[in-house]
Amino acid sequence: MILNSCSMSPQPLSPHNFRDLFDSVEAFLFDCDGVIWKGDELIDGVPQTLDMLRAKGKKLVFVTNNSWKSRSQYADKFRSLGISVSQDEIFSSSFAAAMYLKVNNFPSQNKVYVIGGEGILEELQLAGITAFGGPDDANKTIDLKQNCFVEHDKSVGAVVVGIDPNINYYKLQYGTLCIRENPGCLFIATNRDAVGHMTALQEWPGAGCMVAAICGSTQKEPVVVGKPSTFMMEFLLKK
Amino acid sequence: MILNSCSMSPQPLSPHNFRDLFDSVEAFLFDCDGVIWKGDELIDGVPQTLDMLRAKGKKLVFVTNNSWKSRSQYADKFRSLGISVSQDEIFSSSFAAAMYLKVNNFPSQNKVYVIGGEGILEELQLAGITAFGGPDDANKTIDLKQNCFVEHDKSVGAVVVGIDPNINYYKLQYGTLCIRENPGCLFIATNRDAVGHMTALQEWPGAGCMVAAICGSTQKEPVVVGKPSTFMMEFLLKK
Repeated sequence: MILNSCSMSPQPLSPHNFRDLFDSVEAFLFDCDGVIWKGDELIDGVPQTLDMLRAKGKKLVFVTNNSWKSRSQYADKFRSLGISVSQDEIFSSSFAAAMYLKVNNFPSQNKVYVIGGEGILEELQLAGITAFGGPDDANKTIDLKQNCFVEHDKSVGAVVVGIDPNINYYKLQYGTLCIRENPGCLFIATNRDAVGHMTALQEWPGAGCMVAAICGSTQKEPVVVGKPSTFMMEFLLKK
Repeated sequence: MILNSCSMSPQPLSPHNFRDLFDSVEAFLFDCDGVIWKGDELIDGVPQTLDMLRAKGKKLVFVTNNSWKSRSQYADKFRSLGISVSQDEIFSSSFAAAMYLKVNNFPSQNKVYVIGGEGILEELQLAGITAFGGPDDANKTIDLKQNCFVEHDKSVGAVVVGIDPNINYYKLQYGTLCIRENPGCLFIATNRDAVGHMTALQEWPGAGCMVAAICGSTQKEPVVVGKPSTFMMEFLLKK
């Protein structure tokens, strides 16, 4: 269960060195999908392990590349699974996207267009950034008649793309127009995971699918804030 | 207007060599989007040029990377614009996808799943290949509850992806499952154009957008049958 040790070089765990390693580690970082839960089911042994680590005074951080939810929504998910985790212990790629814009001084007069979940919108708003799109555009349709035209907001300074099971042509066109036509508009990917584990029975196209779609229509590459980029981990270490 | 000359090496056109070049060329290949029409509007001078070439006994071929329509549907479009063009004079990437499978002896017991337009389904059916998906899956939705599951047909031996303004998560999941889980399943792109000119007022995400989405979720690269791949041109030359 020890996922990350910043202060020691990797060595095989054995009954002899386990205690030294354990004592030397202050914080434990956990992935969530497939480590804490699978879909909406808790993985065996997780509550006992977390209780033991807390009893030993270890700091816990739950890191998830999945951008669908905000930290507060992930805290609710932990709660619904019977585990008490505070928002401050959670680090999601939706939060990472907001932090990336904040540390890079995203201009307050600019807006963000979101292809992804409510969680991204929520984290951006908490960071004081005006954002729109996401679930609000889930049911927008395009009828490609001759006079069909999508008008986009020229003040959009970044398009954030994460996993979006409500992906549609309107969103693809809107994000593409912002990136292609608004000078300096950033293209930010929460992550590029090929698949996600949103249900227990099968894998589903992940943010990597929606991000690649926008790469395909814009011919541009995104800034990735989630794993395996180092932004999230570097931000965490500074924190 | 001379787009392609197979028998001569390129040289600048001048009043002196124009006649020799013109006389030596048997067939004229035209792109359609932006050359013959823009959206549903004919480009100035096209009817006169085509009439002149036909009067001189030249063979005309209309090549389009746009996979939305079949050759017969493109013939209808020419007709609606007042130009008489036969189905045999049209070479679309929807037809190219069907021809690619045919010349590669696609097994008759296998099926094709289509992310794209009716035109691809029509061309596959004309080539004797069983295909499904496309417009029939336009309104399918996914509700990611814990027991949500998309069952895919294990006999799908190829997924053909073209431009699809009705792209949705169901189609992305279905195509991804076939490519990832059916042994040997082909991933065929009609083309990878970033944008298309389906209306006169703005550009729209092209097949390159949907193809990239499937690359993102499968981590695989497609066989491309349209331009700039040489399959379409080589097939035409043999014909």
